[in-house]
Amino acid sequence: MEFEALTSSELAAYLRRVPAVNALLGDDSELDVVEVGDGNLNYVYFVSSTKAPQKSVVVKQAPPFLRLAGESWPLTRQRMEHEVAALRRFGALCPQHVPEVYHADSELFLMVMQRLASHRILRQGLKDGIVYPKLAGHLSTYMAHTLFFGSDLFLDAEVKKQAARAGINCELCKITEDLVFTYPFEDHPSNVYSPALPAEAIERLRQHAPLRSAVAQMKWAFMSRAETLLHGDLHTGSIMVNQDETYVIDPEFAFYGPMGFDVGAFLANLLLAFFSRDWHGRTGSADPRPYQAWLLEQVAEVWNRFAAKFLDLWREHEMKSGKSFIGGPTGSACAEAFRVDFMRALLADTLGFAGCKMIRRIVGMAKVAEITSIPDAVARAAIEVRCLQCAEAMLVQRASLTRIEQVVELAQEIQAGR
Amino acid sequence: MEFEALTSSELAAYLRRVPAVNALLGDDSELDVVEVGDGNLNYVYFVSSTKAPQKSVVVKQAPPFLRLAGESWPLTRQRMEHEVAALRRFGALCPQHVPEVYHADSELFLMVMQRLASHRILRQGLKDGIVYPKLAGHLSTYMAHTLFFGSDLFLDAEVKKQAARAGINCELCKITEDLVFTYPFEDHPSNVYSPALPAEAIERLRQHAPLRSAVAQMKWAFMSRAETLLHGDLHTGSIMVNQDETYVIDPEFAFYGPMGFDVGAFLANLLLAFFSRDWHGRTGSADPRPYQAWLLEQVAEVWNRFAAKFLDLWREHEMKSGKSFIGGPTGSACAEAFRVDFMRALLADTLGFAGCKMIRRIVGMAKVAEITSIPDAVARAAIEVRCLQCAEAMLVQRASLTRIEQVVELAQEIQAGR
Repeated sequence: MEFEALTSSELAAYLRRVPAVNALLGDDSELDVVEVGDGNLNYVYFVSSTKAPQKSVVVKQAPPFLRLAGESWPLTRQRMEHEVAALRRFGALCPQHVPEVYHADSELFLMVMQRLASHRILRQGLKDGIVYPKLAGHLSTYMAHTLFFGSDLFLDAEVKKQAARAGINCELCKITEDLVFTYPFEDHPSNVYSPALPAEAIERLRQHAPLRSAVAQMKWAFMSRAETLLHGDLHTGSIMVNQDETYVIDPEFAFYGPMGFDVGAFLANLLLAFFSRDWHGRTGSADPRPYQAWLLEQVAEVWNRFAAKFLDLWREHEMKSGKSFIGGPTGSACAEAFRVDFMRALLADTLGFAGCKMIRRIVGMAKVAEITSIPDAVARAAIEVRCLQCAEAMLVQRASLTRIEQVVELAQEIQAGR
Repeated sequence: MEFEALTSSELAAYLRRVPAVNALLGDDSELDVVEVGDGNLNYVYFVSSTKAPQKSVVVKQAPPFLRLAGESWPLTRQRMEHEVAALRRFGALCPQHVPEVYHADSELFLMVMQRLASHRILRQGLKDGIVYPKLAGHLSTYMAHTLFFGSDLFLDAEVKKQAARAGINCELCKITEDLVFTYPFEDHPSNVYSPALPAEAIERLRQHAPLRSAVAQMKWAFMSRAETLLHGDLHTGSIMVNQDETYVIDPEFAFYGPMGFDVGAFLANLLLAFFSRDWHGRTGSADPRPYQAWLLEQVAEVWNRFAAKFLDLWREHEMKSGKSFIGGPTGSACAEAFRVDFMRALLADTLGFAGCKMIRRIVGMAKVAEITSIPDAVARAAIEVRCLQCAEAMLVQRASLTRIEQVVELAQEIQAGR
């Protein structure tokens, strides 16, 4: 049977039949249904009471295909179950940063969730040059909690293995395996190159052996390392913010993978915002540099605060439980030595994954607005080249970049053309 | 209901009711049943026709506990299903090195398999100083085939994820997590120290931070990296040999884990044989050195031939399929660069896991005969100290040991007391 998106009246009638949702919307008014449809994968609706518009929910439904590509790219609708399970899991770990799920329907592959009406997508806010003073604090908390509590550092070994089993998400992982780690580095028809991007830059992605080996190492890590339940797509388009709050949405790519993949996704998108700010910050002869400095500050802050919180959770858990991952005694110098090495390896992974994520956004199929919205082809290509240079250095030098401040300096040097 | 081991007559009557087994044993004779019981986990029987003793099978049954420890250490009997599945999988990949399974009973947790009547356990052969000229060739073939064909380098991504799901083996992995990676490095009641082992050597295992961090990194890798279907316990007691043939038995620990764990287990046990040869080779004032040289030669040969065969399988698969793990084109310099980096990382993993395996055999609960059979406490401790030194160096220096010949030199230097 062919899929047909719900009409507004069908959706309204459906929601009225779900008591929990009906109560939230108030039961005495017409419902206003708007398809917002900015997702790559799903149909998304804002539904609100016409009389009391603050009574509002979001409805998300998974069609049996990749929405970005259309019916020619089929996807099973079970991805909605992954998203619901992940939202509930992350919500339990970090309720202040994850929207609430009010209702999930495993026959219609549809869920109803909290409307974040006073928040906007972080990517848009960064493009507009907005400072979010609480962002680094919130994101570092979200990542520390979600990544730590799903891992063998916290969970009983069997519980973790069963969680990894339940988290297997073949179809959406395949999209990442192809679109992030493979196609951008070969001559693939899904790639889209901006008109002025130099041929040398494209050739380098395909033929520079140290870069391609590094990317393949990250692909291997992505495919084999079941470290924790990841969000799986933690870019700035999956984050909704205002000056006071930060929410992480859209975890349909959730699976048990390497921790650095989530952290790297976020840092990659901060760096894309940083380099593209060179254009967006010049509107009306303004100076892009102050906001660029803020963006790089966030790169360092997010990592450093994440690392500190992750280590705090880890030490606290070992103190409380009296058990240490490395074996007893707890709190020993040996346990601390392992923590230092662990975080160093996690930073290296983070930078490697960030590099892959930056490159795919420049030459791959799915782009980002802060780059594609640059109308001047030459200026856009210059920014794209800087993004590619930074990504390559992060990938190839990741083992020797042992402090995040070195990454900040790297980005500054590339921006300055040194 | 309490478990009771089958009596000889019960087992004989059972086997007569299985047509495939009955045919193998010949249907006109009494059956001779001998419990050989040298396993740590299971009951094992040799069953043969009294009239034609060459008509013979092995029967293996999993009791609901760890046999080494007794009923105080319960284990679910489903481990037999893991072993049967792994034997069938490895047998399909490498029939010349894996015993045939004739019959499996998932109610009695029992299987009937090929009797290797003219073969002996490799550990015993090495202790007796026997040269096996085909060993390195056979083992390298076995490891290259089993490790390559279970991985993302060969399998479709979804098939591999489903295989990893099916391979989850919580209970037996937990034994390894505890007995290999944790207990030997803490003050744990299951550890057994030989009488003359110096206190400093024990303290160093517990308090030397670089060593303990390295061990914890290997534990983390063991618990999170689902790279391929491993044997999971590939020591010299899991291998049966004669001058012409080599068989790998007992894969009940099989699970999706890091490739280096299998390779490291085997190399670790060659090195234990090497160091302990210093005692066993002196019987009758003989010179232990020629056989020690042969053992170290096997360390290098097994690795080098394994690496060459693994790379051949990989290149051949990519040429035939026209698809490269790193993306197109196949056979490029970039694909080769990744292969070099991949094998270097695999060697580092191998050495790290080998180090853990050596240490657990010296101070942990489950020992090896080539060490425990040394009656002279001082001589035994001296050999144990050399094993620990070699293991520590392999763990801590694993990233800089980029050729197996460096490991051979390391072992020679430690043996020479340099």
